[in-house]
Amino acid sequence: MIAVAQMGPISLNQTRQEVVERLIGLLREAARQDCELVLFPECCLTPFFPHWFIEDQREIDQYFEREMPSPVTKPLFEEARKLKIGFCLGFAEIVENRGETRRYNSSLLVERDGQIVGKHRKIHLPGHVEHRPQNPFQNLEKRYFDVGNLGFQVWNAFGGVVGMCICNDRRWAETYRVLGLQGVELVLLGYNTPMQIPEYPDLNPLVGFHNQLSMQAGAYQNGTWVLGAAKAGIEEGVEQLGESCIIAPSGEIRAVAKTNGDELIVHHCDLDETIPYKGLLNLEVNRQVKYYQLITQEPELDCDSVL
Amino acid sequence: MIAVAQMGPISLNQTRQEVVERLIGLLREAARQDCELVLFPECCLTPFFPHWFIEDQREIDQYFEREMPSPVTKPLFEEARKLKIGFCLGFAEIVENRGETRRYNSSLLVERDGQIVGKHRKIHLPGHVEHRPQNPFQNLEKRYFDVGNLGFQVWNAFGGVVGMCICNDRRWAETYRVLGLQGVELVLLGYNTPMQIPEYPDLNPLVGFHNQLSMQAGAYQNGTWVLGAAKAGIEEGVEQLGESCIIAPSGEIRAVAKTNGDELIVHHCDLDETIPYKGLLNLEVNRQVKYYQLITQEPELDCDSVL
Repeated sequence: MIAVAQMGPISLNQTRQEVVERLIGLLREAARQDCELVLFPECCLTPFFPHWFIEDQREIDQYFEREMPSPVTKPLFEEARKLKIGFCLGFAEIVENRGETRRYNSSLLVERDGQIVGKHRKIHLPGHVEHRPQNPFQNLEKRYFDVGNLGFQVWNAFGGVVGMCICNDRRWAETYRVLGLQGVELVLLGYNTPMQIPEYPDLNPLVGFHNQLSMQAGAYQNGTWVLGAAKAGIEEGVEQLGESCIIAPSGEIRAVAKTNGDELIVHHCDLDETIPYKGLLNLEVNRQVKYYQLITQEPELDCDSVL
Repeated sequence: MIAVAQMGPISLNQTRQEVVERLIGLLREAARQDCELVLFPECCLTPFFPHWFIEDQREIDQYFEREMPSPVTKPLFEEARKLKIGFCLGFAEIVENRGETRRYNSSLLVERDGQIVGKHRKIHLPGHVEHRPQNPFQNLEKRYFDVGNLGFQVWNAFGGVVGMCICNDRRWAETYRVLGLQGVELVLLGYNTPMQIPEYPDLNPLVGFHNQLSMQAGAYQNGTWVLGAAKAGIEEGVEQLGESCIIAPSGEIRAVAKTNGDELIVHHCDLDETIPYKGLLNLEVNRQVKYYQLITQEPELDCDSVL
């Protein structure tokens, strides 16, 4: 059994410690339901701070974790190990290396014995670099985060082949395919997805549809389970999509969250359900990579379009 | 206005000339509805012969066209030019070049002035090479056809950027992405899709869902219209999916066939609807090709898995 732990909003005045208590509550509920793995959302220790403009870098950096587990997150790791339940946790990560500072939108995969087995750093950063004061909220991931430098990896864990991606990564067919080519059976992802797209308001009514469509297609086209955990509800004035879900290798939605708050959805994700889909796809035989070369060519950019 | 011309089955005792008369009938109906373009299905001049095993190569070759237009197909081309309506037509193509014979599953794009502006040769051949007499029908595309050698191209036609693919090509995210990277606004495809998958019968109930899911995701993930024309109904004992459809750049289904016979579905495909999706995607800026390299690497095959 696997649990997707959707979370309601985290307010600015909630402490890290209080958030960790919420995570532990969801973890315990998952353990009571005999789950071996819990998926938490993207950046789930704080409000999603790319939604507002912060000038002071020291203030920005307060949303990041310098170590994991840290003193404040350690109780989560300890409770999970005690309950013999693994988890996937999204968080903002700051790294100092040879005098350079890098900031990533990251997730960790932790096995049932408490070992950290995998890390993903978000590859596809949506939004913009510059402050857009005319918008009702910001989407400053391109300003606050560096592009992840770990690619799309898989790990042998939880009796299968597990991959991770984060939020906007899920909209790109390349994400699932790179994982699929490594035999992924279970893709774990968290998201913070506003119900409004300030630049393209006509698309607002389709936010939920596009969320599901991308994950369903990624599942079917690679024969893998795809699990998505939302941070949902109105967080510091920004309304976010819930609809956390568990999608089978057929592309069918097997479970979906009903609320916009903290909510566990649980499903028995039988990894053998991947077999007919991977068999029919037969990726090694049926793909014709000679005709895909454009996909891995660096685009020619003019300076204007980079910003 | 664009028309998708679904076709009901073509029986073995129907002549090419009779089939061309059906195509002309659909073409005229589209002209009456002020369409500028009609999309016909895959291999729509004959029954879909890969569904049975034929030993005699001369008999196989009777399903192929040696020239286009040929004396028997010329009336279609002439009627279209007269009506100032373009079309996309799927057919089996045989080519002799320097003493070598190649056979492709092809489609042609013909502009309103009668000029042939584009050709696609199916890249992704499903099915198997060997006869499987235990199956209720065959899927011998890998036996009868060569892998297309033209890649995925686009053409400036019908006031936009038009691409083609055929049947199984539509299940691969790579197809849409390679077209999307060339700015495609309108993807035209035909299909012959059995309602049964003999090797994986558990998947039968999902044949229609998977048909739509692939095209919807391809549309949304590249901000393009996707049009699919089925050869539908029970053809020489093989039941085929209908559900010919017109899908918007949002991924929404705008029109879908209601019958399993010859049927025209018509929609005003406004190419400007691609703009917000292409804007949001911003493919040149947001893709991270460095991490997609697996997608264009040749797989390492052992001999067994090739056959």
